[in-house]
Amino acid sequence: MYDVAIIGKGPAGISAAINAKARNKSVIIFGRDSKKVMLSPSIHNYPGFIEIKGPELIEKLNNHLQTLDVHTSSKMVNMIYTMDGYFSIQAETDMIEAKTVILSVGVDFKKSIENEDKFLGSGVSYCATCDAPLYKGKVVGVVGYNKESIEETKFLSEVCKKVYFVPAVNEDFDFSNNVEIIKDVPLKFEGDFTAKKLLLKNSEVEADGFFVIKDSYPLGTLVPGLEVDGAHVKVNKNMETNIKGLYAAGDITGKPYQIAKAVGEGQLAALYAADYIDNLG
Amino acid sequence: MYDVAIIGKGPAGISAAINAKARNKSVIIFGRDSKKVMLSPSIHNYPGFIEIKGPELIEKLNNHLQTLDVHTSSKMVNMIYTMDGYFSIQAETDMIEAKTVILSVGVDFKKSIENEDKFLGSGVSYCATCDAPLYKGKVVGVVGYNKESIEETKFLSEVCKKVYFVPAVNEDFDFSNNVEIIKDVPLKFEGDFTAKKLLLKNSEVEADGFFVIKDSYPLGTLVPGLEVDGAHVKVNKNMETNIKGLYAAGDITGKPYQIAKAVGEGQLAALYAADYIDNLG
Ligand SMILES: Cc1cc2nc3c(=O)[nH]c(=O)nc-3n(C[C@H](O)[C@H](O)[C@H](O)COP(=O)(O)OP(=O)(O)OC[C@H]3O[C@@H](n4cnc5c(N)ncnc54)[C@H](O)[C@@H]3O)c2cc1C
Ligand SMILES: Cc1cc2nc3c(=O)[nH]c(=O)nc-3n(C[C@H](O)[C@H](O)[C@H](O)COP(=O)(O)OP(=O)(O)OC[C@H]3O[C@@H](n4cnc5c(N)ncnc54)[C@H](O)[C@@H]3O)c2cc1C
Repeated sequence: MYDVAIIGKGPAGISAAINAKARNKSVIIFGRDSKKVMLSPSIHNYPGFIEIKGPELIEKLNNHLQTLDVHTSSKMVNMIYTMDGYFSIQAETDMIEAKTVILSVGVDFKKSIENEDKFLGSGVSYCATCDAPLYKGKVVGVVGYNKESIEETKFLSEVCKKVYFVPAVNEDFDFSNNVEIIKDVPLKFEGDFTAKKLLLKNSEVEADGFFVIKDSYPLGTLVPGLEVDGAHVKVNKNMETNIKGLYAAGDITGKPYQIAKAVGEGQLAALYAADYIDNLG
Repeated sequence: MYDVAIIGKGPAGISAAINAKARNKSVIIFGRDSKKVMLSPSIHNYPGFIEIKGPELIEKLNNHLQTLDVHTSSKMVNMIYTMDGYFSIQAETDMIEAKTVILSVGVDFKKSIENEDKFLGSGVSYCATCDAPLYKGKVVGVVGYNKESIEETKFLSEVCKKVYFVPAVNEDFDFSNNVEIIKDVPLKFEGDFTAKKLLLKNSEVEADGFFVIKDSYPLGTLVPGLEVDGAHVKVNKNMETNIKGLYAAGDITGKPYQIAKAVGEGQLAALYAADYIDNLG
């Protein structure tokens, strides 16, 4: 029986593992290298690293993890069962038990436009806050599937020379002059190394980069009985979910989707899980 | 008028500055190098750095800050006035204005034992969670001024060979065999380079290191009308205080006192402050 089972090996999960070990707990962590971080071309807002490429940060985080006595498994978890005072975790064909669980599986987006996945991180971004600085004074396209895309477009219009906005939402907007609205159906991204063109049903948009702003996948049935809010797990400020002994951290707890937030929450989840274990007596 | 004024240049404040700049806001940051981080002999739980000395981390954070167009001031802030839609900040003889304020001044402890400050970070620690790993298998002394010191002593007794517990609280405790309770009045730490001895009124304790576990100073009258909870500022999960446009992050919002938490909260405070400014229109 492990003290802490961590589901997800992104920034949130690795921070949780480091901090659970600082409290002397036995730890297993499941998952693969974070796809999101891997795809981050250049991270400027994780304090301590002026500029770091995603894969480089992953390497640093993995090296940090390797200095600790943590059991790692690249298996994917299918199901977490809440038992009486502990958890049973099914990871492919393995079954392991733990006193506490930290859920740090991130959020998933459904692909909506052809080549969106191919160009993600190379001219296609899901997050204006993260990547707007790359397009200062340049031309961008935004495909907006939700209300937030309007805010994101406003923000981009302050930073960029010109913004093409392709709304897939029925909302009112009131943009500055450098935003051009294109009412058409987006089909496919094109480009050599990075996305440079968006083909629509009746038109096309050329830009230095594109933002696709949409809601994330709803969380599946990984944990029966877990209280969720759309794609996110509901937590209180101690990262506790509605299930005793089960914590969540990182993108899965909600926006903003950012590394420093994920790392801070991973720490909190681990320290409160350690407190919980210490009080089991 | 600045967009964001950040009060405090520790990990929380610097993270806030980095993230406010990622949102293209004008920023001023007040404060000196964090004393706490400066005194951290060896940090193992900030993800990305396997082991880093406090002053080294400060240097990295300051370098990160210097790459950005942020106004820095080493002046100390005396008073923050809430005006109609903005803030007026008095820093010694300067008076500056900002649309939003992020409070990241940390927490202060009152010195209680002679030489406590001299040996802080060198054999004297305020935080078992942070520094217990340094004393694995060794002998430590704990001076406990609050209820939490009992939990901290239990935790240390799992990690250390022997724990001397000097209670300055009136509580019941039930420790394992390797905890010895000393009912006496602590007076002074002694040692050459690091604290090795605690002199009490009628006895003395020799150990490899000491923990002084106590409550922090109540927050002064920096911001009239600010809702506090003892030494901490009350915030919601967006780091908003009860005053519109005023955010808080880091140790000042409550335990655990840790760098990753401070950095995550600094990011949240900055991003929500940026949202707030964008919505001022
Ligand atoms: C292109 C791009 C650029 C970005 N740029 C920045 C930036 O500059 N700055 C910034 O702060 N943020 C940036 N982000 C966001 C950042 O990457 C995320 O906020 C961060 O990775 C979230 O960390 P996490 O640990 O919560 O989740 P993730 O990093 O998504 O990790 C999820 C983990 O869970 C695992 N997992 C999922 N399901 C299971 C399962 N069933 N069983 C076991 N394991 C599972 C995965 O294998 C992975 O290890 C960017 C994102 C993208 C896509
Ligand atoms: C000995 C020791 C070891 C530690 N080890 C670890 C560890 O291993 N891992 C870990 O995660 N944490 C550790 N910590 C805790 C960590 O240092 C704190 O959690 C962290 O520094 C909190 O950051 P902060 O930005 O909230 O506040 P602080 O770092 O305390 O910074 C406060 C800032 O506010 C400024 N300030 C204060 N008042 C004013 C004012 N009126 N006007 C303007 N500026 C003001 C100060 O000058 C300073 O810049 C340790 C602490 C100590 C003391």
